[in-house]
Amino acid sequence: MGKQIRIGIVGYGNLGRGVEAAIAKNPDMTLAGIFTRRAPADLKPLFAQTPVHAMASLNEFQQTIDVLILCGGSKDDLPEQGPALAALFNTVDSFDTHARIPEYFAAVDAPAQAHGKTALISIGWDPGMFSINRLYGEALLPDGVTYTFWGKGLSQGHSDAVRRVPGVKAGVQYTLPSPDAIERVRSGARPELSTREKHTRECYVVLEEGADAAVVEKAIVGMPHYFADYDTRVNFINEETLRTEHNRMPHGGFVIRSGNTSEAHAQVVEYSLQLESNPEFTASVLVAYARAAYRLNQQGQFGAKTAFDVAPGLLSIKSPAQLREELL
Amino acid sequence: MGKQIRIGIVGYGNLGRGVEAAIAKNPDMTLAGIFTRRAPADLKPLFAQTPVHAMASLNEFQQTIDVLILCGGSKDDLPEQGPALAALFNTVDSFDTHARIPEYFAAVDAPAQAHGKTALISIGWDPGMFSINRLYGEALLPDGVTYTFWGKGLSQGHSDAVRRVPGVKAGVQYTLPSPDAIERVRSGARPELSTREKHTRECYVVLEEGADAAVVEKAIVGMPHYFADYDTRVNFINEETLRTEHNRMPHGGFVIRSGNTSEAHAQVVEYSLQLESNPEFTASVLVAYARAAYRLNQQGQFGAKTAFDVAPGLLSIKSPAQLREELL
Repeated sequence: MGKQIRIGIVGYGNLGRGVEAAIAKNPDMTLAGIFTRRAPADLKPLFAQTPVHAMASLNEFQQTIDVLILCGGSKDDLPEQGPALAALFNTVDSFDTHARIPEYFAAVDAPAQAHGKTALISIGWDPGMFSINRLYGEALLPDGVTYTFWGKGLSQGHSDAVRRVPGVKAGVQYTLPSPDAIERVRSGARPELSTREKHTRECYVVLEEGADAAVVEKAIVGMPHYFADYDTRVNFINEETLRTEHNRMPHGGFVIRSGNTSEAHAQVVEYSLQLESNPEFTASVLVAYARAAYRLNQQGQFGAKTAFDVAPGLLSIKSPAQLREELL
Repeated sequence: MGKQIRIGIVGYGNLGRGVEAAIAKNPDMTLAGIFTRRAPADLKPLFAQTPVHAMASLNEFQQTIDVLILCGGSKDDLPEQGPALAALFNTVDSFDTHARIPEYFAAVDAPAQAHGKTALISIGWDPGMFSINRLYGEALLPDGVTYTFWGKGLSQGHSDAVRRVPGVKAGVQYTLPSPDAIERVRSGARPELSTREKHTRECYVVLEEGADAAVVEKAIVGMPHYFADYDTRVNFINEETLRTEHNRMPHGGFVIRSGNTSEAHAQVVEYSLQLESNPEFTASVLVAYARAAYRLNQQGQFGAKTAFDVAPGLLSIKSPAQLREELL
């Protein structure tokens, strides 16, 4: 094994904590430190020995960090940090606002190219592993249809929407794929599925004192964009139940390509994830791609790249010869 | 779209026919011709307009073929053709003798490097897409176990073994994954599974006149290496049933990675194929990788490579910008 790859973590929420855990499972990597806008002494890392530094000191680490993993949010943090840090470090991020990816790619690509850095953007599982499987499906079965289903999983955006409804004290929302729709797709029939047929939504809500359950329920299920196009079930629970039974972040889903190689022969390719912790899995993907970012930079491959640009072998701790012998 | 990629097919069995069908589904490719050791006039291609040439004339096509797809067998054809043709053309093949891949890789790499050609070896679904998913699983969840299940599918090697048993006139063998074993793996429990627990085998046999069914059955189920380690069921049928009900080549299987990102959280990643025609799907994979072979060669990436070395984006007819916008 070559030298250790030195990783820095920027931002320390659920995703940053997941990255700290994942680095410990990859023996070719060391964690150079967590960088935070909070007072470093206030941050409690998973492992006591993990160094914690002030975000303001990040520039001093250019010689001692090989890849920075950006763990901030796509709405406020990454649009600013991604382009700025790609001028100074090799980076990996999980920018996941699908509609803005082309614009974000361009904003990160220019500084990375100009400074000889490699920036892997939109890494994780969707965008990320699901995107790769949508691409493979289409390329291998050009005469076909791709279906993506999400869940069962906690949706952060929809949970936030529920919590903004007047009368709601706290709550969470789960997205559920329709088992019936999945079976129809697996049959190779290439059904046309409406939004309502593909997923259902389930909310667990704690009411504020004196709030009217019927009014709250109506406000949720009729909410345009978030719930109006789905069959939504609202369950009212107490705070204790919310805390004990809805404190995890499961997620997952399915990418299914159904296609024909000839009139007589249908073929179905399926990729699925069943995740007990969405942020920990996303973090684990970011860490594997940090290895690829380091190697691509060593090869002189500069600029912004996505999961589509990374050969599978670059993710593995094993050498190409070992991979051919053991995994092919 | 750039210029058309001109493909040549070497060998015309089920796989070669599948390649001919797949090229017709990829608008950026044209079929320059099929090359055969038979008399060209005796070969009946799927499409009347497909040119058929004698194998001996292949050298004359070096300037008019961009990528050759080698559709011969791994036992006798490829060990000879792979290295010889990699000196003259960019090639893609489905060499699938797992234990001999390192040796075959070296034999193809040297001539390809020496002549500035790109040779993609061991492409298909296993080796191929299953290998990629074993690699991704391991890289994303280093603390975990990978399981590969095959079937339900027709196994050529095991069907041949059945047909060699004295008293057997004709027959086929299907490999079946154990649904119970798959469920245990999906639960995240990381079970240790014996060969017998993972798969069962099912044979459909036509007896020669006067053969003793009990003797034949005993010879099959006790056959070392092929059947002795499995629970095998032998069904005796007549020739008409064999011809009408067992004339297809379905296959498929599952690659499942079960791992933990922390003590509290198990994660399961699954990739599966459900194929009505094994050779047509394998052919379709070869054709997508022919596009990648052409592009890698244009980039100056010479030598032997496997699916591990090919970035997903190289397989797609779409441009990188289009892929980011539509599929990420």
